Order: sequence, then structure tokens, then C-alpha cells
Amino acid sequence: MMYRKMTEKRIKSLKSIASENNVITNVSDMEKYATDESPSLNYMPDAVITPENQQQVLEIVKYAVSEKFPLTPRGGGTSLTGGPLPVLGGAVLSFEKMNKIIDIDTSSRMAVLQPGVITGDLDREALKHGLFYPVNPASLDSCTIGGNTATAAGGANTVRYGTTRNYLAGMRAVDGSGRQWEAGGKIVKNSTDQQLLQLVAGSEGTLSLFTSLIFRLTERPVKSAWIIAPFKDINNIPDAAAKIFSLSVNPTMVELMDRRTLDCCRRYTGETIEFENCSHLLIRLDSEKYFSSSGFQDMIFAIGQACLATGAEDVLIADTAAQQEKIWKLRSSIHDAIKETCGSIFEEDVAVPTGQVRQLLLEAQELSASTGFKTAVYGHLGDGNIHINFTGRDAPPQKVRELKRRLFESAVKLGGKLSGEHGIGLTKKDYFSRYIDSAYIRLLKKVKKQFDPGNILNPGKIF
Amino acid sequence: MMYRKMTEKRIKSLKSIASENNVITNVSDMEKYATDESPSLNYMPDAVITPENQQQVLEIVKYAVSEKFPLTPRGGGTSLTGGPLPVLGGAVLSFEKMNKIIDIDTSSRMAVLQPGVITGDLDREALKHGLFYPVNPASLDSCTIGGNTATAAGGANTVRYGTTRNYLAGMRAVDGSGRQWEAGGKIVKNSTDQQLLQLVAGSEGTLSLFTSLIFRLTERPVKSAWIIAPFKDINNIPDAAAKIFSLSVNPTMVELMDRRTLDCCRRYTGETIEFENCSHLLIRLDSEKYFSSSGFQDMIFAIGQACLATGAEDVLIADTAAQQEKIWKLRSSIHDAIKETCGSIFEEDVAVPTGQVRQLLLEAQELSASTGFKTAVYGHLGDGNIHINFTGRDAPPQKVRELKRRLFESAVKLGGKLSGEHGIGLTKKDYFSRYIDSAYIRLLKKVKKQFDPGNILNPGKIF
Repeated sequence: MMYRKMTEKRIKSLKSIASENNVITNVSDMEKYATDESPSLNYMPDAVITPENQQQVLEIVKYAVSEKFPLTPRGGGTSLTGGPLPVLGGAVLSFEKMNKIIDIDTSSRMAVLQPGVITGDLDREALKHGLFYPVNPASLDSCTIGGNTATAAGGANTVRYGTTRNYLAGMRAVDGSGRQWEAGGKIVKNSTDQQLLQLVAGSEGTLSLFTSLIFRLTERPVKSAWIIAPFKDINNIPDAAAKIFSLSVNPTMVELMDRRTLDCCRRYTGETIEFENCSHLLIRLDSEKYFSSSGFQDMIFAIGQACLATGAEDVLIADTAAQQEKIWKLRSSIHDAIKETCGSIFEEDVAVPTGQVRQLLLEAQELSASTGFKTAVYGHLGDGNIHINFTGRDAPPQKVRELKRRLFESAVKLGGKLSGEHGIGLTKKDYFSRYIDSAYIRLLKKVKKQFDPGNILNPGKIF
Repeated sequence: MMYRKMTEKRIKSLKSIASENNVITNVSDMEKYATDESPSLNYMPDAVITPENQQQVLEIVKYAVSEKFPLTPRGGGTSLTGGPLPVLGGAVLSFEKMNKIIDIDTSSRMAVLQPGVITGDLDREALKHGLFYPVNPASLDSCTIGGNTATAAGGANTVRYGTTRNYLAGMRAVDGSGRQWEAGGKIVKNSTDQQLLQLVAGSEGTLSLFTSLIFRLTERPVKSAWIIAPFKDINNIPDAAAKIFSLSVNPTMVELMDRRTLDCCRRYTGETIEFENCSHLLIRLDSEKYFSSSGFQDMIFAIGQACLATGAEDVLIADTAAQQEKIWKLRSSIHDAIKETCGSIFEEDVAVPTGQVRQLLLEAQELSASTGFKTAVYGHLGDGNIHINFTGRDAPPQKVRELKRRLFESAVKLGGKLSGEHGIGLTKKDYFSRYIDSAYIRLLKKVKKQFDPGNILNPGKIF
């Protein structure tokens, strides 16, 4: 596939389509679009376009098709896989100016959004109407709903509330031929035109660009508590989680933070941490309005007993807003904390069957021991989506590849997958072709060709 | 597209692939495969094949591709749209012998199934392990998990629990080129290979045949209650539902039965019905283990108050197993009751935004009044998926088309869709091309061609 260069003439045409101040070509202004949150990737775009509406997106795609240059869509730039980086040049299409919440329809409990809306903003707006958008990626306040849709993002609330995919109800999009299409609507149940909606969710910008999205909103819980159980032996934590699930307490989050992760967070935030020499199991409970206080307390007690019975050193309860804020601040700092204090060679978010998490932890420990690389492990224990960081400031590329390969091999052997929520992007591309069914990939490539025959949309990703 | 005839030679080959007793060609034995639950359709297959395993399915598809005859997959035959009928001839491939529950993995809360498993059997098996498969189509005890996946089936529990799509975690399938492929696994969160999994869910057997499916199981609620509120004016019921949703009570079902539907059920089942001259709002609540009895009672009381405030004649509570069984028996009988007592010219399951249900009811009433055809209306008020029956024993085809067109037009005008859970199949095909975005259909057809270049799989459906 040969792409054409971004000439002065093409820049001029883009400016006439998207208006002068929506096209950036100044290198210093483009710098931030050359990176995302993944370590050590840098791909400078030839131009950055920040369209303001659907019509501009449509015209930009048509122009890119006719002139044969890549378009790489970008939401909040929080990807950990290089997803929004223009690896084959061309223009980055940033949705930062398409960030309007168009409608919160309280009677149908639906939100109509431009794709650049920050996920946290959607929930804050829902809150004003007594509603809830429960999908909660760690980058909540910087990632976008369009980026979440592109990766089928999850987050810590998945155990109880599911992922982005479960709330996506409708979309308007532009395919790689420069044709606008739409599917779904403000409807909860759809056996009419939901197939392609669900196909492009998780397609990481390779099949279509979203110009508007419709999301279902839900009930907002009224009462919360965090339960923290420190364990000397991290390998007991999955047993505790299994015991908790057998209690039927419908937790919102069941999270894991190993000792090293906690240490990074402590050093980064300056907060004191009780039982800092342990690994922690964190459970968040949320209750509905009519759930009684005594029932809620009984539930907390039962969870505490389950933790103690499986080896917890103690059980700490955080049921005031201040305590909970402290916990969430700590939990939310993880990514930056590890990067700043220990350095992150890479972080992978493998997903395994929940019954196999213990084995995954053991294999990660074995991998660390046999290679001498230290790890910091945390993540969404309740849904089997574990984030494994190999820490340090530097590692030979060949070693990085070996570590990744062995980690993915372990996950796949346990019935798991390369990514639970980050997607494949650039950084997992080679492993995708290695560990995913070749017949699946063959079909996916054929589908890609139908949506984007010129390979204009986010080329160089997934496969 | 020209298909080849099912010759003696081909039957013989099929018998050598699938074994003698898995190929039916006797007309009287094939009769039941010529119909489904949709009124007045009859398409006799040339042969019926009942494969017993994945390998046989694979070989059958390969043979159908090489010999160019259609294969129409069939689950429980409960379709209301002609989905499993061989409208262009060829063989019906019935999954009735592939009905094994392969594994209930309690540690990962996942079920591995052959596609012919009856949906109710899955839940009964889950129950033995204290788990729950919550998707609840009305045909629970005769539909299959493969058919549910093919239509992305919903049912009455969608309000709280979502649809088949939300529980589908993995699949093995055979595409229309006779290639086996697989995606997903026993994992809750998957940003690796979930795209095609979600694409073929809802594809009504036109893209691939499933040979095994993996479903997520969840917690089983421990306490239930039904609340029934009779209303003289059906048009007040959506207001009551809206008020109930504002209470944050997370109902499992919010169902509607109009007076005529109730009358059909009463006559069909012989049960007495209180307030039989009213339309009924039915709410089912389920509670988790630690939800206290007093909280549960408070919730029921609040719902009752909401109903009375919006015009209910009374509020009836069913909290014993016997009372609940009676209600569910009545509710489950609807489809047969209407057919047997009033006759059904057609039933359509349009889906509209929940805030538009009232308007849909008004438009259905207007349509009935202006055409003189009587209706029986019921369905899933809580998710906007309303089932509208035009009753009677006979109607001129032209009149049927007009009624359907006007009904779909109303739904689409209100932001709705042709089907919330039944799918498009044969009976809604013409309306699909009329009311669904043409760019969407164009893409869907291109995708179909990649999965099934010879148009072997369930041809003549959807488009």
C-alpha cells in the first residue's frame, strides 16, 4: 500500500474543508499527537485535523480517500497500545472539538453524544438528571466516549455493570469509502440493526469514524463502601475473590493491587498506606435505594469473614466519602505512579477466565524470577483482566519481546486473551497474529477491506 | 443465484457425511421443519440433516458449498419471522442432536454449550450450581441457545439483565466457505477478538453456523415478588412505568398486557383474572441475598404508590411461589392464547425509545380504529419492546402489508426499529430494506459476501 505525501496543496484543501484553524501543521503544536500513554512510541503526524462537525468529518474522509493518505482517529490519547498514533504518516483526526453532549433524554434514559465527549463528563451530566453512566476506565477524566467505543473499553466497574459495548445503543459513522451510515437509536433492545454497531465497537478506528454515539444510561446507586483486605501472600487473593462471589453480593469492583504497586502509589502520592507490606484486595459495593443499612452492613461483614477465612491479615472498611476518595485517588494513580517511581517497560492487560487468575499470577511470578525483571501487578480481579507491568527504565527490545511473548503465551494457555480492555493497536499487533485464530483474522481482514478498501482508516493497527 | 437440486446422489453423500439416521427425506417426517411459529408460512425442505458434532457440521457446509445448495439452520423452530424456513429449498440443518451442556465452569462462572441446548435447560443446569442464566425469552423451554444467539434474543428480563448478546463470551463457528473459526472464550472482558463474535450474534444464520458457544453466568437472586396494577386506561401505563423507573428499584420485568390480551389468556387458560376489564402493568422484582425483607417491602410499597398516583385501580402483590407461578403461566401463554382464541394475523415486536411507548400505543389504537382490525398488545414496556398483534382468522395479503407498513412507519417515526428481539427473517425483509439506512444495508451485504460468498447460509433472509 503506497500512500501519498501530505503536500502544501493537500494541507490547503484540508483547510478549505475543515477551516483554517482546524488544521495544525506546526511541529511543536503537533508534538502531543505523536504520542499516547504507551511507553516510548513517537510518530509525528504530517498534519492534525480537529473537525467541528459531522459534515467536516465526512468531507475529510472523502478527501483522504481520493488523495490516498491515512487518517488516524484520536480521542483522549490515553491509549496504552499506540492506537491513535499515525504510524504510516498522514493526518491525525482529533475529535477534541466534537465534545458536545447533544441530548440527555431522561424519558428514554439515553444520551446522544459527539465522540469527543470525555467519559467522566458524560457521567457528571447524567448525575444532574439522577442517572448513571457506569463504565469506568482508569482514564475516566481524560479518555473519550469515542475512544472507549473504539476499544470496547471496560474498567473497574465491569464486574457489576459490564463494558462500553453493553451501553452502546446507536451510532452515526463514516466508513473508509467516505460514506455515512447509521445504526441503532435510543433503544434498549435491537434485533434489527445492531450487528454492525457491535462490529465497529472494538475496531479501534479501522472500520469507521464515529460522528455521533447514543448510550444507554442507568440507575445511580445511592450508597457505597470499600472493603480492603491485605494479604501477605498475593496467591491467596483469588481464593478470597471466589469466596466473595459465592456470597451473591454483586460487587461493583473486585480489584487487586500487589505489594509493589502499592509501594509505587505510596511513593508517588505521599499517602500513608496501612499494611503496606501486603498485597491488597479491594472490593467496592454499591447499593440501591431500598437496600437497608443493616443488610448493607451484613454484606460487608460476610465479605470480611470470607477474606479472613482465606488468609487476610485484617479487613478495613471505608464507608465515608473522605476515606473512599483517598482509596480511589490511590487506585487511580497507579498507572502514573508505576511509570514515575519504578518505570514501566510495558504494561499488558491480559484477560483470563476468573478461575485461572491464580495460575496467571504464579506464571507472572515465575517469569519475573526467571528473567530478573521486576513486576507490578494490579487490575480487575473480578473479571479476570489483570494488568501486569514489567518495571524498569530500560530493557533491550529483544528482551521486551521475549517477556511479552511469554506473558501472552501464559494467558492464552490458560484460555485467556491478549487484551481485556486496551485493545491491540500497534503494540500487540504481532502477538495478535500469533495467538488469535488465523481463520478469525482472515475474516476480519476481509471485513476491513469492505469498510475501508483503500486502507485509509488507522492503517498499521491490529493486523 | 442458481442453486442445485437435492438429488439422490447428494442425499447419499450427506448420509455418508452425517450418517444414515441423521438425514431425513421422508415428507411426513420433514413437515415440522417446514414451519415455525410465524403464522401461515410453509416451506418444505428437500432434506433435513441433524448433525451430531462439529466435524459433521463442518463437512456438511463444505459439501453444500461444493454442490451449491442452501443450508438453513434451525434451533427450536420458535421463530416468529420465518427465520429457520428453507425458502429457497435445500437442506434444513437442525441442531436438535447437538444439545449437550459441555461444561459448567463454576470457578469462572461460564457455560460451554452445543448450540442446540434448550435455553431453559441451561438455566436449570446453572441453578444446580447456584448460578443463573438470566435471559428469558417467552419460548424459554423450546427455543435454543443457538437460535437465541442468531437473533440476539431478549425477553422479559432485559430491563435488569440485558439480552443474549450481553452473556455471549465465546464461539466456535463455520462460515459459508466451509471454514471453521473461533473467537472469545471463558472471559468476561475481551478487547482482543470480540468483534466478529458480536457481528455474527444477531445475523440469523446468514454468516456462520455455530458449533459451540460459551456463555457467562451470573448470580441468582433469592427473593421475588410480582406487582400487578390494573389500569382502565392503558395509555396511563407508560407514565406509571416512568415513575417506577425514577424510584431506582431496578426491576427485572416491567410488562404490559392490554385488556384484549388478558381476555385471550383468560379464555385460553381458564384462569380467573382480577380486574379483567383493565389493562395490566406487571412488575417483577428480584432481590439479592442481603436485601432485607423490610427494604423489599418498602420497595413494593413505593411501586404501588407510583401506580396508584398514575391511575391504577388497585395494586395486587404476588409474593408466594403459587401466586407467581399463576402469573407466569398466564404471561407465558400469551402467544398461544391469542392465536387460539382470537387468531393472529401477525405479531410484530417493534422497539421504540421507552419515552415513546405511550405514543406508539396511541398510534396502534388509531391504526386499529381506522382499519377496523382489532389488536392485542402486550410486551416489554420497560425496554420499549412492544408486541402488537393484529388479530383475526384471515386478512387479504394486501391489507396485511398495509397494516405492517403503517405500524413500522409509526415505530420508525418515533425513533424505533422493526424488531427488538425476533429479528428480521423472512417476514420483515421488505420492511428492512425500506426502513433501515441504505448505507448500513450496503455494508451488511458486503460483509455477508465475505462470510458466505456462495450465499449458502440461510439465503433469502434479512435482505
